[in-house]
Amino acid sequence: MPLTITRFAPENLSSAEVTKSLSTDRPSASYKLEYFDVSGMGALPRDILSFGGAQWEDLPVTNWPAEVKAPFGLFPVLHIKTADGKELRLSETIVITHYLAKQFGLLGDNEWEGLQIMTFYSSSLYLRDRLTMRVTWNYKEVQEKAMETFLKKDLPLWIETHTKHLKDNGSNGHYFGNKLSLADLETANDIDHFQCLYRGDEIVNQIKQGSPEIWRVKETVDNEPRLQSWRQSEGYKKHVATSQAMYARTGI
Amino acid sequence: MPLTITRFAPENLSSAEVTKSLSTDRPSASYKLEYFDVSGMGALPRDILSFGGAQWEDLPVTNWPAEVKAPFGLFPVLHIKTADGKELRLSETIVITHYLAKQFGLLGDNEWEGLQIMTFYSSSLYLRDRLTMRVTWNYKEVQEKAMETFLKKDLPLWIETHTKHLKDNGSNGHYFGNKLSLADLETANDIDHFQCLYRGDEIVNQIKQGSPEIWRVKETVDNEPRLQSWRQSEGYKKHVATSQAMYARTGI
Repeated sequence: MPLTITRFAPENLSSAEVTKSLSTDRPSASYKLEYFDVSGMGALPRDILSFGGAQWEDLPVTNWPAEVKAPFGLFPVLHIKTADGKELRLSETIVITHYLAKQFGLLGDNEWEGLQIMTFYSSSLYLRDRLTMRVTWNYKEVQEKAMETFLKKDLPLWIETHTKHLKDNGSNGHYFGNKLSLADLETANDIDHFQCLYRGDEIVNQIKQGSPEIWRVKETVDNEPRLQSWRQSEGYKKHVATSQAMYARTGI
Repeated sequence: MPLTITRFAPENLSSAEVTKSLSTDRPSASYKLEYFDVSGMGALPRDILSFGGAQWEDLPVTNWPAEVKAPFGLFPVLHIKTADGKELRLSETIVITHYLAKQFGLLGDNEWEGLQIMTFYSSSLYLRDRLTMRVTWNYKEVQEKAMETFLKKDLPLWIETHTKHLKDNGSNGHYFGNKLSLADLETANDIDHFQCLYRGDEIVNQIKQGSPEIWRVKETVDNEPRLQSWRQSEGYKKHVATSQAMYARTGI
């Protein structure tokens, strides 16, 4: 694959200079999310940008894999244009997500809440990664038994533990307090993702029947007014439709 | 599995109170890392705690899986005792690692360096996760072909991209500047992990032969004086020996 390995920032800038631009860029930075025309790992950053009322747009990956231009050869890549015009790139889902969540107030009210929110985010991301690597994109001959293990072992553990913590917070549709956080968004995005998958209805039913508490998180996110216009847009709908088509023929 | 889902902090403490204790606990907090008696996902937190000169000890997981007591039913769990005596727990590898790296000065000199260090950390962690889920603990009948894909596709991409960024930093054995960071530690820990695996010699040789730059990171970490006494301890050696024995019979 012809690969151009791009830098995270222009060569002539020190990281101290970039940090200075970042810390003052909040009012008018703009963003582009470079990713494929599917939900996948782009769905959560897009939700955060929309929730935050950011100036942002999708930047589709073109000509892939004939030509790849990214810091690690992988997507998503978040392009940040600071208020003073510096052009930066961030890679890696967890870094992009954490950065945007911090920018747009989705990490709670203090450091300890932020740490806990990140544990829930990570736990849900890992559940989904496990499904992706062990079932969705595993070899066809082992997919069915890998799915059984996921349904009987990994998923119930996630449901049981998350339900307990949600009950501790009063079963109010949020993981912490009474406000939306990254933990809520990741759980809702997981369920959206599962809904696109082969046998995804079994996964979603298990969650819905096993945990009204988790399901309430999903409904609360779905009803969040600051996400509505993005989620009703043609762009969002196209990502979902393309995802559904892609996951209809998984396995390798 | 009989599971007790523990809280992250005592019930009567607000997250604001915990945050206050955390921010003043640096001088005399102590830590226990609850994990199995192997390297695995415990190796990096143990390295950071040792590098930082923290007061810490291993807390072995006992009676597993007959009895499990953790916030998500999974390990590692980091137990933090703050200077004023509060007992806290953190879950999830990326959260534990990020928290400790920040405490002990392994996230660079400013925010932008910290973000980039986290991207390298994430990229290397993901490479290893991919190997773990798709090869090491995949079904025996697909392990060999999954390993071929890893050796021909995932690993070369990681080597090529990381080598480029290391060259940009002067091929000096560090990802950023001239000091140790979480990015260096994760790459070195990946290689240590690969060395324990079936066909791990092929992985390690590909790295060593393909990239003197990456190999220099590994050597620089190995020669770091602040890690020496931990890595020469009986505890460390036992983790490595147990890991080697465990990975001799992988697959499910």
